[in-house]
Amino acid sequence: MGSTAASLFDRAVARVRPVDRGAAARTAEHLDRLTKPQGSLGRLEETAIRLSAIARMSPPPIPAPATVAVFAGDHGVLERGVSPWPAEVTAQMVANFSAGGAGVNVVAACVGADVVVVDVGVATAIPEVPGGSRIRDMNIRRGTADLSGRPAMTIGEAGRALDAGVTVAADAASSGARCLLTGDMGIGNTTPSAALIAVLTGRPVREVTGRGTGIDDERWEIKVAVIEEALGRHVLDPGMPGDPGDPLTVLASLGGLEIAALVGFIVGGASLGLPIVLDGVIAAAAALVAVGIAPDVTDYLIAGHRSAEPGATAALDHLGLEPILDLDLRLGEGTGACLALPIIQASARFVRDMATFESAGVSADHA
Amino acid sequence: MGSTAASLFDRAVARVRPVDRGAAARTAEHLDRLTKPQGSLGRLEETAIRLSAIARMSPPPIPAPATVAVFAGDHGVLERGVSPWPAEVTAQMVANFSAGGAGVNVVAACVGADVVVVDVGVATAIPEVPGGSRIRDMNIRRGTADLSGRPAMTIGEAGRALDAGVTVAADAASSGARCLLTGDMGIGNTTPSAALIAVLTGRPVREVTGRGTGIDDERWEIKVAVIEEALGRHVLDPGMPGDPGDPLTVLASLGGLEIAALVGFIVGGASLGLPIVLDGVIAAAAALVAVGIAPDVTDYLIAGHRSAEPGATAALDHLGLEPILDLDLRLGEGTGACLALPIIQASARFVRDMATFESAGVSADHA
Repeated sequence: MGSTAASLFDRAVARVRPVDRGAAARTAEHLDRLTKPQGSLGRLEETAIRLSAIARMSPPPIPAPATVAVFAGDHGVLERGVSPWPAEVTAQMVANFSAGGAGVNVVAACVGADVVVVDVGVATAIPEVPGGSRIRDMNIRRGTADLSGRPAMTIGEAGRALDAGVTVAADAASSGARCLLTGDMGIGNTTPSAALIAVLTGRPVREVTGRGTGIDDERWEIKVAVIEEALGRHVLDPGMPGDPGDPLTVLASLGGLEIAALVGFIVGGASLGLPIVLDGVIAAAAALVAVGIAPDVTDYLIAGHRSAEPGATAALDHLGLEPILDLDLRLGEGTGACLALPIIQASARFVRDMATFESAGVSADHA
Repeated sequence: MGSTAASLFDRAVARVRPVDRGAAARTAEHLDRLTKPQGSLGRLEETAIRLSAIARMSPPPIPAPATVAVFAGDHGVLERGVSPWPAEVTAQMVANFSAGGAGVNVVAACVGADVVVVDVGVATAIPEVPGGSRIRDMNIRRGTADLSGRPAMTIGEAGRALDAGVTVAADAASSGARCLLTGDMGIGNTTPSAALIAVLTGRPVREVTGRGTGIDDERWEIKVAVIEEALGRHVLDPGMPGDPGDPLTVLASLGGLEIAALVGFIVGGASLGLPIVLDGVIAAAAALVAVGIAPDVTDYLIAGHRSAEPGATAALDHLGLEPILDLDLRLGEGTGACLALPIIQASARFVRDMATFESAGVSADHA
C-alpha cells in the first residue's frame, strides 16, 4: 500500500509545470494601462501578476471558490515538555472544527472559504459532535514518535501522509476550488516545524524556534534543547535509508503527519495549477520541504501572513516570499491564510474590472 | 449660510462621546475565554476591543454594511508644478467613479461596501457618464487657491466643507451604514496633506513629503520648497483671523476642500458612534485636524493601511494608530480602507462566533 500510495505524490511532483511568465508579463503590462498611477496598487500588483503566471491566463481568473484544508496530527515530542497543552486538545479542537466553533470556521465563513478537516495523525479519540460536519478520516498513525530520540515516522508513513495531502487537494479541485489554503492543528507542532526549518534553511535552532502558543523562557529553553537533540540524532543516524539532507528523509525524521500531508497538499495544488495560500509557520515548514522536492512549486505559493513565529520569517525569506498580512497572528488552523484571501481575490479583480485610461477617457499623458 | 452650515460641524463636535472602556474590557476578557491561545489573534484582538469601545457593546456588532465616501476637490497649488497630472484628471476620475471603473469601485464591490462620491471642490467640468451612478454635488468652490501664496480657502468655505462631510456621514448612517470608510480624489492633494501633517505633527517638511503618484527627485524638491513656502506664509500671516496654530485655521490655510470634508465626515461618524476606517495620507491629515478639534475622535479611528507616503506614517504615529495593512499602496480613493474592511469585520466575528473553552469542551487548564 505504501508504494501505490507514494506514487500519487510522485506523480504530482512530475506534473508540476513552471508557471507561465508570458501571462505574467501581459498582466504587468495591463496593470500599467489601468486608471491609476503606475505601481500604485503596490503588493497587489505582484499578487495579480503571480496569479496570472499560475493560471497561465491574463487577466488572471478570480481565485474563488477557495478551500482551506486543516490537517490534524499529534506529536510524540510532546512528552518532552515542549508545550503546556496536552495532546487531547488536538482531538478536542478537531471536534471544535466539526462543530464550527473554532477560529478557522469563523474566518472561513467571513471570506467564503470551505473548510475541510482531515485527521492524518490524531493520537486520541475525537469527541463525537452531534450534527457536526464531517471529519475526513485519513489517520495514518496515532501521533508521531518522539523525534528527539528516533525518526518521527517511517518513510512509508510519510509517503502515505504526502498522498493524503495530494488526494485532499485533488478532491477540493474536483469540487470546484480554484484556490487552496493551508491549515493545521497539532499540539506541539511548532517543534517539528522549527526542526525542519533549521535543517532546510541552515539557520541556528535558537533563531527559528518560537513561543508557539505562548510558552515561557524556561519551556522555550527546553524546546530549543529538544530540537538540537533531534538534529544531532538526525545527522548522526537518520534511522532510515537515504541521505540525511534529502528533503523526504528530513520530513520523515523531523516532521509530523499533518506537516507531511501539507507537503502533499501544496505539491498537489501546484500540480493542478492552483495558487496555494500558506498560513503560518507549519505551512512554511511544509513549503520548504515541497520546494526542496519540486522547486517549481515556489511560484505557486502566496504567503498569507507573517506569523509571530520567527521560523516562519526564516522560511519565507528562504523561499523568497513576502507575506500579504502582518497582524502578529499565531493561532494557526489556516486563520491567517483565510484573512489574506479577500486581498488576493481583490488583486485579480482589479485587473479584470478596472477601466483603462483609454476606456474611461482619463488623461494618461502628463508632463 | 456659512454660520448655519458651520453649526452642523460644531454640533457634531459637541456630540462626540468618549468611547466605552467598560465594553472594551468585557470584550478583552471574553477573548481570553475563546478556544485559542491567549493573544493569538494578535492585532485582531485590539481591533475587536476597539470596535466594542466604539459601539459601547460586547461583543461588538459586526461593522457592516459599510460606506466609503470619496470626496473630490482640486488644488490651486497644482500651478506650482507639484504633480505631473493636470487638474482635469480629478473630474475625469470622478466620472470614472460614476461609471464604476475605478480602483475603489472594484475593491468596494469585492468587500461589499457602498461607494458615495461627493464633489466638494472639483475645478473642471465632470464628464457626463450615461447610466452612471450619481455624483453628489456639494461643490463649495471650484478648487482651492494656491496655498503657497495665500490661504487655500476662507474659514467660511472650510466650514461649509466640514458640514458637507458631516451631512454625508449622517446620510450614510441613515441609510444603514455601520462603518464609514474614507476616500478622496484630488490631483495634487498630497501637497496640502503634507503641509497639514508638517504643521500638526511638528515634523520637518522633507520628512513628511512623499512622491504622490510617483514624482521624480526634481519635482519632489519643488514640492518640498512649495510646502515650506506655504508654511512660512501661514506662520507669518495666516491671512485670516485666529491663532495660526488653531486646527481650523490650519485646515483653511493649508488644506483642501476634500480634506475639510473628510474632517467633517470623520467627526460626524464619531458623533454617531461609528467606527471610521482611514485610507491613506489624505485621510491621516484630515484625522489630525479632526483630533485637534475633538480629541475623543481618536478612539473611533482605525487605520486601514500604511500608505507608501511618509506623511501617513508620521500622522498615524502622532495619532497612536497602527495600520491593519501594509501593502505599499498609494492609489488613494479609499482603496486601502476597503481592503482592510474584511479583516476588521472578521475581528468582530471572532468575538461573536467562536466557541469558548467551556462551550466546546476543550481543556483550558494546562501545566
